[in-house]
Amino acid sequence: MHKIPVGVFGASGYAGRELCALLSAHPHFELTFATANAQRGEQAFLGGREVRFIATDDAPIRSAELIFSALPHGASATWVERAQEHGARVVDLSSDLRPGHTKQNIPYGLTEVKRDSLRGAEVIANPGCYPTAILLSLTPLLERGLIRPESSIVVDAASGVTGAGNSPKPELLFGEVTENYRAYGVGNEHRHLPEMRALVDSYETNADLLFTPHLLPVARGILATTTVQLRAPLEEPLTIWRDHFAGEPFIEVTPDLPTLRDVQHRNVVRMTVRAAAGMRVPTLIILSAIDNLVKGAAGQAIQNANLSFGFAEAAGLPR
Amino acid sequence: MHKIPVGVFGASGYAGRELCALLSAHPHFELTFATANAQRGEQAFLGGREVRFIATDDAPIRSAELIFSALPHGASATWVERAQEHGARVVDLSSDLRPGHTKQNIPYGLTEVKRDSLRGAEVIANPGCYPTAILLSLTPLLERGLIRPESSIVVDAASGVTGAGNSPKPELLFGEVTENYRAYGVGNEHRHLPEMRALVDSYETNADLLFTPHLLPVARGILATTTVQLRAPLEEPLTIWRDHFAGEPFIEVTPDLPTLRDVQHRNVVRMTVRAAAGMRVPTLIILSAIDNLVKGAAGQAIQNANLSFGFAEAAGLPR
Amino acid sequence: MHKIPVGVFGASGYAGRELCALLSAHPHFELTFATANAQRGEQAFLGGREVRFIATDDAPIRSAELIFSALPHGASATWVERAQEHGARVVDLSSDLRPGHTKQNIPYGLTEVKRDSLRGAEVIANPGCYPTAILLSLTPLLERGLIRPESSIVVDAASGVTGAGNSPKPELLFGEVTENYRAYGVGNEHRHLPEMRALVDSYETNADLLFTPHLLPVARGILATTTVQLRAPLEEPLTIWRDHFAGEPFIEVTPDLPTLRDVQHRNVVRMTVRAAAGMRVPTLIILSAIDNLVKGAAGQAIQNANLSFGFAEAAGLPR
Amino acid sequence: MHKIPVGVFGASGYAGRELCALLSAHPHFELTFATANAQRGEQAFLGGREVRFIATDDAPIRSAELIFSALPHGASATWVERAQEHGARVVDLSSDLRPGHTKQNIPYGLTEVKRDSLRGAEVIANPGCYPTAILLSLTPLLERGLIRPESSIVVDAASGVTGAGNSPKPELLFGEVTENYRAYGVGNEHRHLPEMRALVDSYETNADLLFTPHLLPVARGILATTTVQLRAPLEEPLTIWRDHFAGEPFIEVTPDLPTLRDVQHRNVVRMTVRAAAGMRVPTLIILSAIDNLVKGAAGQAIQNANLSFGFAEAAGLPR
Repeated sequence: MHKIPVGVFGASGYAGRELCALLSAHPHFELTFATANAQRGEQAFLGGREVRFIATDDAPIRSAELIFSALPHGASATWVERAQEHGARVVDLSSDLRPGHTKQNIPYGLTEVKRDSLRGAEVIANPGCYPTAILLSLTPLLERGLIRPESSIVVDAASGVTGAGNSPKPELLFGEVTENYRAYGVGNEHRHLPEMRALVDSYETNADLLFTPHLLPVARGILATTTVQLRAPLEEPLTIWRDHFAGEPFIEVTPDLPTLRDVQHRNVVRMTVRAAAGMRVPTLIILSAIDNLVKGAAGQAIQNANLSFGFAEAAGLPR
Repeated sequence: MHKIPVGVFGASGYAGRELCALLSAHPHFELTFATANAQRGEQAFLGGREVRFIATDDAPIRSAELIFSALPHGASATWVERAQEHGARVVDLSSDLRPGHTKQNIPYGLTEVKRDSLRGAEVIANPGCYPTAILLSLTPLLERGLIRPESSIVVDAASGVTGAGNSPKPELLFGEVTENYRAYGVGNEHRHLPEMRALVDSYETNADLLFTPHLLPVARGILATTTVQLRAPLEEPLTIWRDHFAGEPFIEVTPDLPTLRDVQHRNVVRMTVRAAAGMRVPTLIILSAIDNLVKGAAGQAIQNANLSFGFAEAAGLPR
Repeated sequence: MHKIPVGVFGASGYAGRELCALLSAHPHFELTFATANAQRGEQAFLGGREVRFIATDDAPIRSAELIFSALPHGASATWVERAQEHGARVVDLSSDLRPGHTKQNIPYGLTEVKRDSLRGAEVIANPGCYPTAILLSLTPLLERGLIRPESSIVVDAASGVTGAGNSPKPELLFGEVTENYRAYGVGNEHRHLPEMRALVDSYETNADLLFTPHLLPVARGILATTTVQLRAPLEEPLTIWRDHFAGEPFIEVTPDLPTLRDVQHRNVVRMTVRAAAGMRVPTLIILSAIDNLVKGAAGQAIQNANLSFGFAEAAGLPR
Repeated sequence: MHKIPVGVFGASGYAGRELCALLSAHPHFELTFATANAQRGEQAFLGGREVRFIATDDAPIRSAELIFSALPHGASATWVERAQEHGARVVDLSSDLRPGHTKQNIPYGLTEVKRDSLRGAEVIANPGCYPTAILLSLTPLLERGLIRPESSIVVDAASGVTGAGNSPKPELLFGEVTENYRAYGVGNEHRHLPEMRALVDSYETNADLLFTPHLLPVARGILATTTVQLRAPLEEPLTIWRDHFAGEPFIEVTPDLPTLRDVQHRNVVRMTVRAAAGMRVPTLIILSAIDNLVKGAAGQAIQNANLSFGFAEAAGLPR
């Protein structure tokens, strides 16, 4: 059977490696090249086989019908353009083309929210890992206009270290991260904020957004704890989430609190919602968990590529 | 030099063990017995020496001038009473005598806030670990009345597993906790909440409190991320915290974000504060870190015992 | 397509859970019941679906054509017998039927060594996790008679905690295992030794075997470091291993040193061999790694069941 | 009271930081400068206070009566010489001056073995971390000539990552080390081997030595598992070790198996010994544990400096 030839730019980072690994099990896509400038000539054992990295400049772009770009933020946009000029479809995992980062109107690959605009799309801006976990869990409220006007949505989230990439930085050494935990980007300084702001604002809520990420001594996974004030109390909040996501293959709404273990190596968002006792203003706590490298990066990228090419949305994805 | 003879009830739990270890280096206290019903007859290597556990019923209470009770919640109050009848001073590490848990008016050992009532106290209710981290970091705002009326204080906190004790529960096995992270007690269900509510309410703020704890794959340490809405913007919030805690030997106010590593095995609270950008209502994020077994339990208990006996407050404490 | 109905005894332990998870992706086997006395009535999320545990006494054995028993050592043999009486084939993951543990001559499921005796077998004794890692890596020497007579084979091995099961024992709590490492069963006291002794002795080597296991702060994986003295130096030892395992789908002989990461969640043994410099007697160090729950338990069990039923040996197995 | 002014070269690595932290509690030594070329101008929070790093070239060597050099191997010897020219005593933590690495006859700081040659010494070569754990545990056999002639001493040891330093290398990132375990330097390639060979050979045993180190997902600690063949069986091996180390303040001989937890943050070697069952040749397994940064580096360095200056050997050291 003919498979779509696929290239990966920036394949030596954690997201790029996950892409190569997932592609090895895909029924319709076939990895034909993987670039990594610093590691060019080296091999990596990914998805049960050896992948050899080439320089991005040496990539036979013309041979690929689909390109995933996992290049660093800032460096990706140029290569996305080049790939398009060669006729390839592109899913860009960097932030370069996301809402809040560019004025271009690129289809935003938050699949369950933007599905219709992704079918057949020539280029897709794949969402960040935090935005995927947080925004998907908020849409039941956003779409129904249930959030209290002028209130603050307070998001505390924690991510495993693969979210910070595999460039060797002293603060990411095992000796620094093990048995440790810390916040970063405190005060709305995280680069994922504009992307989240943009989507929240598109719903004409006027709620503020406060986002505080933390670094976990864990390799992979994100758990977001989101506190939202409501216009009015909700009888059975979980029912709203269940109805909203009914039939979604990659969204799991459960009465139990989600854990990282529940979602690791799987292309799902798992979430629940609880009402807070003892509050003047009716308040919900939404918990949502994803694997930052799968539903938060490579998995959602493949989900989006499936839509672009008209394949089954779940093709090749670990549930 | 004569040392005060000290007994520890419930010495085989994590807090009890930490007490025994810290007492081995104390200049004025001397451990004379340590009880642990289930482990009676066994030895533990604590603070560089072997400690032998006896049954609580066999404790020579009369021989002790000071008792620390680290018995389980519910079981402690009776033994505290018995120890007092025998003439011993008592620091109770359980929640039995804390505000929100009893109607008795027992001195509450949040040292830096309640210091005057602790000098010479016959019995002291030692605070919970979460309340210590959270309440101390809030007092600069509470005492100045700076919190926005009718707003919600949103506390997301994460604790190492020793906060959950060392009774063997399946969900605390290494295989379940490693590479995992999850919330618990979601929706204001944590048993530390009444204690925090009681102190916050004593300041006549009418803010609500929402507390969501999480379990970290870490042995020890708590990091609390507290979001507070203000009546009005603050020019230099850090200065307020610095002034408030000036001269406190066990409070570290820093411009840097505190990490668990900064506080492990030390009897300190380390904290900072940041203003949130892009919010309609002026909002602060307060980060505070403690070692849950030291400043959050055994260390603060010794700090309080030092005050009770009139010793230097820092005697025997690891800074 | 008709699938073989399969039951799992003792499904709530780590090996039993892994079996249920792997079976969910098997093309020819279908899980029809899973027993777990203590957890009966509870559900677990395994392999992307909910599995409900029943009491072993309530198991509809008659409905199953294949039973995997992951019951505790000592308790398994009786149930294996009962399942056979009902006409089911059985793969027993306990040590009850392994060489060195019973005088019965049950086919021993060290697949790559005993393949011929496993095809069509009615009952199979699945090897222990340590023996799988160690014995497979030794067979190139054992079969060629290259080990120095009267020498000692020194095996130091380290295992993740899932090897010790998920019964809540104090020494397996996260707070005790994290940042820790220790040996156990020192002095040839480990219960896997007889099984290893039996296979080594079957080759008529007269070498002694010394086995020292260690507990790693890791969930899954075993690395065995085996030191062997040779009759004579070997020119290119790696070539011997490569030739020996040529064509084996689940054995990876590599020049690189194997790591746990290389084998986690995969049904493989990954190994290499190095000559030791500066030794009077020619000495090899063999390194071999497996996932203790996959190739060391559930994966190899399915591999063996595939042989028993005449399916492709690799059916349903993660490589 | 006058304190000896002390400088630390190479203070930003893990051993250098541990030295600064330990010196803050020393009764006779006082840190006056700490060098770190790459971090010059930066501050670190060590031993409860801020230490500011200066360039090594800017070090006021003349002001120090004692220098600890924790510079990298190869770079240290020159600076040791320079410090001696300025009249300072020096403890060198690099391998430059250790036996097997230089032909100079520098006092070797394996304190419990070489104590007499260390009193008043002008310069001391501090042992490596692995050699400290391994050699001290072997001396009861070496000094008594009990090891079987022409046999092999097989040492498998595992170390936490701080043994590999804090230079940012990809293979030391948290994401690579967590849930992983691997051997390195296999085949007698580790740079600590010559140092161990030299000491073993000084006892005129003719045993071979095989050393295989492993990397643990742990910050600190070494456990060495050493297998030794004996000339003849020993009745009660533990008694030999106990007698040998009687009165040693920093050696703990116990019937229990030592764990990393037992020794972390303490300047001790903790060890036990067991006879192996079922072996033709009488064989012992010796287990020994240290904190690689304390007894394996900074702690032993201070222990040696205490001897050099005639202070109590245990001054300022955490037991």
